[in-house]
Amino acid sequence: MDRIESVKNPKVKQWKKLHTKKEREATGTFLIEGLHLIEEALKTKEMIKLLIVSEEMSLPPHLNVDNLNLILVTKDVMKAISDTEAPQGVAAICEFQREHSPQSWSKVLLIDSVQDPGNLGTIIRTADAAGVDGIILGEGTVDHYNSKVIRSSQGSLFHLPIAKGNLEEWIDVYNEKQIPTYGTSLQNGQSYKEAAPAEEFCLIVGNEGSGVHNKLLQKTSKNLYIPIYGGAESLNVAIATGILLYHLRG
Amino acid sequence: MDRIESVKNPKVKQWKKLHTKKEREATGTFLIEGLHLIEEALKTKEMIKLLIVSEEMSLPPHLNVDNLNLILVTKDVMKAISDTEAPQGVAAICEFQREHSPQSWSKVLLIDSVQDPGNLGTIIRTADAAGVDGIILGEGTVDHYNSKVIRSSQGSLFHLPIAKGNLEEWIDVYNEKQIPTYGTSLQNGQSYKEAAPAEEFCLIVGNEGSGVHNKLLQKTSKNLYIPIYGGAESLNVAIATGILLYHLRG
Repeated sequence: MDRIESVKNPKVKQWKKLHTKKEREATGTFLIEGLHLIEEALKTKEMIKLLIVSEEMSLPPHLNVDNLNLILVTKDVMKAISDTEAPQGVAAICEFQREHSPQSWSKVLLIDSVQDPGNLGTIIRTADAAGVDGIILGEGTVDHYNSKVIRSSQGSLFHLPIAKGNLEEWIDVYNEKQIPTYGTSLQNGQSYKEAAPAEEFCLIVGNEGSGVHNKLLQKTSKNLYIPIYGGAESLNVAIATGILLYHLRG
Repeated sequence: MDRIESVKNPKVKQWKKLHTKKEREATGTFLIEGLHLIEEALKTKEMIKLLIVSEEMSLPPHLNVDNLNLILVTKDVMKAISDTEAPQGVAAICEFQREHSPQSWSKVLLIDSVQDPGNLGTIIRTADAAGVDGIILGEGTVDHYNSKVIRSSQGSLFHLPIAKGNLEEWIDVYNEKQIPTYGTSLQNGQSYKEAAPAEEFCLIVGNEGSGVHNKLLQKTSKNLYIPIYGGAESLNVAIATGILLYHLRG
């Protein structure tokens, strides 16, 4: 088995670069850390290209790594490639998801310019729990292979197809398929309770500060708001997504 | 007007200590930063004991600070007392909320051992939006005057009464008042949709890993779960709180 001792090894340098979106897109790969995420990734085995194990780490026996490329590294190398304070001793290089077919989805979440990685990760986890078929990320949304997004998604990134696309065009597609499209807006529109739960829906949530772009709101079947009963100015976007998805799916 | 130039000034040293729970509890005060939070705190004016303004900062004219104690500090002093990367030029020392009367509340949220400050702040913001009357924090829950809690609450900390207490005793109180008490649990209990929306309810949410303590679940009218339709193992506690509060209030 290969073993890397030096943090100056070219492979180590390349793995570290995977913390940048540029390197991820150039290679079509991303880095994950920690046992829980690796277990989730293993469920879709074709994603893991390489398992990186710190030499003082003993992998739990239930972890089936027989058909994986595996490389041993020193504790210092693991620390160098990690972006967490306390590296968990195991990491993996994964390949981007394959192409998806959002035109076949009937419970869809569209995300317009959500910028906080923690919010995007939590939204992915919530959409997974609510059983949506897939997510489409519009321009201006934080990269979903960002390590903080992956951590907050708690592995849901591996359960759910996530595509990137032009949201205006996708709203047109779902409108044509007569799937109700719902924008979200703080002021205008109807209370979300007036949208009937249904087997098919396309929900659009938007940026933390400015919400969903007007050009998108103009294309939807309806725009929904969540009533604010107390003194808060708004809800966090991930919280709003949870309330709306669980309402819409009934 | 007083002015402080040195980061070694005893006042500055004391303000810095307010980032510890110990000092906050010893003095009954806490530190907030940034214009938005200060505007929210000003709505409950008796809370602000002292406004600390960086000398290069010009306060916006709409901010009514006439009756406040105000102190000017240098940029370096502001940086020393701030726990954010980019201090916003204005901070304040606030007094703890006064005593509350949770026995008069009819829409109540009980929080059992939630430990992540971001989660607690988001839960406070969400509970404020959902119009609960107040929150009771049980033992083991992160201090709500922690600066990260305050930031994530987006000012809702100032809108809503937040008490600390023994949750077992409070569940007894609400049970006696015939207010339905709802625990939350991943496995056992009923789907939340079986709980009828009502004017009065007491919801209990729990720790990120272990959920609500069994000793509390044994005292409730019902225990609720949120169905998971996809591959996620669970929902984030703040997301679950949002879904449940908006369902229960109808």
